[in-house]
Amino acid sequence: MGSKITSRAENYSQWYIDIVQNAGLAENSAVRGCMVIKPYGFAIWEKMRDVLDKMFKDTGHQNAYFPIFIPKSFFSKEASHVEGFAKECAVVTHYRLKNAPDGSGIVVDEDAKLEEELIVRPTSETIIWDTYRDWIQSYRDLPLLINQWANVVRWEMRTRLFLRTAEFLWQEGHTAHATQKEAVEEAERMLDVYATFAEDWMAMPVLRGVKSANERFAGAVETYCIEALMQDGKALQAGTSHFLGQNFAKAFDVKFLSKENQQEYVWATSWGVSTRLIGALIMTHSDDKGLVLPPTLAPIQVVLVPILKKEKQTPLILNYLREIEAELKNAGISVKLDDSDNYSPGWKFAEYEMKGVPLRIAVGERDLEGNNLEIARRDNFAKEIVSREGIADRVIAMLVDIQSNLFQRASAFRAESSHTVDSWAEFVDVLENKGGFVYAHWDGTSETEEKIKEMTKATIRLIPFGEGESGKCVLTGNPSARRVVFAKAY
Amino acid sequence: MGSKITSRAENYSQWYIDIVQNAGLAENSAVRGCMVIKPYGFAIWEKMRDVLDKMFKDTGHQNAYFPIFIPKSFFSKEASHVEGFAKECAVVTHYRLKNAPDGSGIVVDEDAKLEEELIVRPTSETIIWDTYRDWIQSYRDLPLLINQWANVVRWEMRTRLFLRTAEFLWQEGHTAHATQKEAVEEAERMLDVYATFAEDWMAMPVLRGVKSANERFAGAVETYCIEALMQDGKALQAGTSHFLGQNFAKAFDVKFLSKENQQEYVWATSWGVSTRLIGALIMTHSDDKGLVLPPTLAPIQVVLVPILKKEKQTPLILNYLREIEAELKNAGISVKLDDSDNYSPGWKFAEYEMKGVPLRIAVGERDLEGNNLEIARRDNFAKEIVSREGIADRVIAMLVDIQSNLFQRASAFRAESSHTVDSWAEFVDVLENKGGFVYAHWDGTSETEEKIKEMTKATIRLIPFGEGESGKCVLTGNPSARRVVFAKAY
Repeated sequence: MGSKITSRAENYSQWYIDIVQNAGLAENSAVRGCMVIKPYGFAIWEKMRDVLDKMFKDTGHQNAYFPIFIPKSFFSKEASHVEGFAKECAVVTHYRLKNAPDGSGIVVDEDAKLEEELIVRPTSETIIWDTYRDWIQSYRDLPLLINQWANVVRWEMRTRLFLRTAEFLWQEGHTAHATQKEAVEEAERMLDVYATFAEDWMAMPVLRGVKSANERFAGAVETYCIEALMQDGKALQAGTSHFLGQNFAKAFDVKFLSKENQQEYVWATSWGVSTRLIGALIMTHSDDKGLVLPPTLAPIQVVLVPILKKEKQTPLILNYLREIEAELKNAGISVKLDDSDNYSPGWKFAEYEMKGVPLRIAVGERDLEGNNLEIARRDNFAKEIVSREGIADRVIAMLVDIQSNLFQRASAFRAESSHTVDSWAEFVDVLENKGGFVYAHWDGTSETEEKIKEMTKATIRLIPFGEGESGKCVLTGNPSARRVVFAKAY
Repeated sequence: MGSKITSRAENYSQWYIDIVQNAGLAENSAVRGCMVIKPYGFAIWEKMRDVLDKMFKDTGHQNAYFPIFIPKSFFSKEASHVEGFAKECAVVTHYRLKNAPDGSGIVVDEDAKLEEELIVRPTSETIIWDTYRDWIQSYRDLPLLINQWANVVRWEMRTRLFLRTAEFLWQEGHTAHATQKEAVEEAERMLDVYATFAEDWMAMPVLRGVKSANERFAGAVETYCIEALMQDGKALQAGTSHFLGQNFAKAFDVKFLSKENQQEYVWATSWGVSTRLIGALIMTHSDDKGLVLPPTLAPIQVVLVPILKKEKQTPLILNYLREIEAELKNAGISVKLDDSDNYSPGWKFAEYEMKGVPLRIAVGERDLEGNNLEIARRDNFAKEIVSREGIADRVIAMLVDIQSNLFQRASAFRAESSHTVDSWAEFVDVLENKGGFVYAHWDGTSETEEKIKEMTKATIRLIPFGEGESGKCVLTGNPSARRVVFAKAY
């Protein structure tokens, strides 16, 4: 490999594509809009999934699996959900192919037309709530705390690997509760889980808040979200958690017998994160040399590279590295010893920088003689010669430091890129020339929100939690109860 | 629950359905042929998946993810594959819905017709080999050892939960090799992995061998399989591994530059197991009281049930059980303490028998006084009063013994149900009256195989590995090189 990638300054979009491609994360497939997640990219997703799955289970959730197909009529049952989801989607109309009569290949068998079309799930609220009707009879069946890891399909016209693809992988939690209070608490709890994951594991600082009505999930009463800031100053919605009220319970007639012996509609939440997080991870930390990964999610945490010059030294250096490899593995560190002989050390250095491996250990003849090794950090390129003794403890300390450094660096970038503005001129200027998060007053109407979007392409990313200072709307001058966060977004 | 299930003797099919339903494993969904895998059933699948995934990684494989959709034309590229797979499948023809002009709901937007139909993957050889063309250039890119965990769809007309459903979950390995020898070794290695998993984890003895030409995977040169015997005397194919020769490499033009600097077609394998294994697990061990699970795959290995009679004893008994719970968890055992107060101990006993929990510990007042507990095995219903001291070691030993007992019991059943026959009359008699595996001579022709299937519904489950004794075909009397294994099958 060793191939050069476009710099961020030159072309940010191309830089992103180059990293996804050259680090071996994903590629476009023969099917428009659908990606192939390559082994290295999938290994990152597996790490994310395992951590999140444990967090979900630790908060009392169980996994289950629901059908990939949803009958078309299900979408019409919840009025606002149908507007949001039953439009650009993959529609199954037939269930059989046959040989073409003219021998030209295979064709759809028109005799095998489905009575009702099936939609490949874009999200599963409808089929799940149709199922919950039979699962929930009494308050004793609640709360029902279920999560599903699945593929979903939304027929996006403009796609970008990980960020927006027709098919993507995600998890979707769907919970049922006896009271509004419990459901709201659940939606807030899962937002906290997402924020903790983003910050502690992805080393990606996020803002937490609620969406404006315009940006709400179709069918939700309230949508909570975490928003991260990418290096080009654009926001990325990294996870959402929805309080669905009784909307789906009413649409699918899901009632329970309360402690007070009353038939009541069930309260609902849903929440999800997807392979989009990999896109967020890339754009938060990476640089012009390639991918940068936080140690906690890196498939390979340390790469070992022998510097082989004299034939006779080869076995000694390799043995030395194998001992280090064993010691690090023993300490629970994920290590790769690259002893391939068809690439130079320089090529390997560039390759593992491209792949974002947090630490590189190189050993040459002189290191061997001195019982030393060279250790290089991917985050800041710092290199030092250190003693072989106590290497596992040193590596662990350095991985912890890298994790923390990445979070601090991203936090500092976000702080620099956050702007509080009070005039329309300043608002436009910041969005045009600086980007980032813009804290501004808004009069609370959808009309103003839409006008601002038309004029600047910026949307309200979230309304922060808690009380805010009052002021005047940056566009209309009308009274505003608090500042909200605007940004251009992915 | 405590609901009664149909006995095997009364109605074996209904017994199976009752167990799946009453143990809370799965249910039919609103979409014909697609199942909902419920949390308890999915927890078993997660255990299976985690064990298998580790076995795949330990043998050098990496996971990746390929699109759910396959362009229709891809199926026509491999001649025998199209016959096997491009028939009963879900066909996506459109990518948009719209509001019906008459306001009656949503309808397919005829303007959004796909130029080429997309098939929801029934298996992924075609899309994967289309991708491998770009991944493989030289012998240095080989072997390519990739696995995918995914959902697949085959439009089955008669479905049964886990055993045959329109959508199911599985893994599919797809590997590429430089030589025929390596590819054959890989196919054999993965069959061994499956057999080890079936026997050591599922406690389910399996026969290993190759399929006859008639039963081969569409597109394979050789199909290896493991076959298990269910309690009704029918065989169940539990896993297959295919040597695909160069068929897919030729169909998708995948060549590599060999060490000798020659352009050569790549050699391929594929191999898979699915949620069908849960059906096999149920039918191998369960009894008329419900599910029986091998301890290594049981989501709950030990259930703790308090026998509460006097109000004042409640906290003491619960504390005593919580101590045991902590001690067992500490020893790595999966435990559930059922302290719910809305069901009687008797109800709970029946419930966890139904769910196949391998061990039950019950504690009443007398046990508490004697520092004892009652421990009951699910496999043979043996009960004993044992001392509280050293309980973790005792539980571990009992779980190991249950695992081994289940395997021995299933092996003994298979031995009793295996018949060596040399005449047609005996062949028919055994199949009609006894069932099981029938070892008989076969003349090696597809014609004879088909006749036997027509006459008896039995198929050749496999041709055992290794040399066999020669003889005469049980139907035609023609020479036979070795006995093969016949059975009626799921």
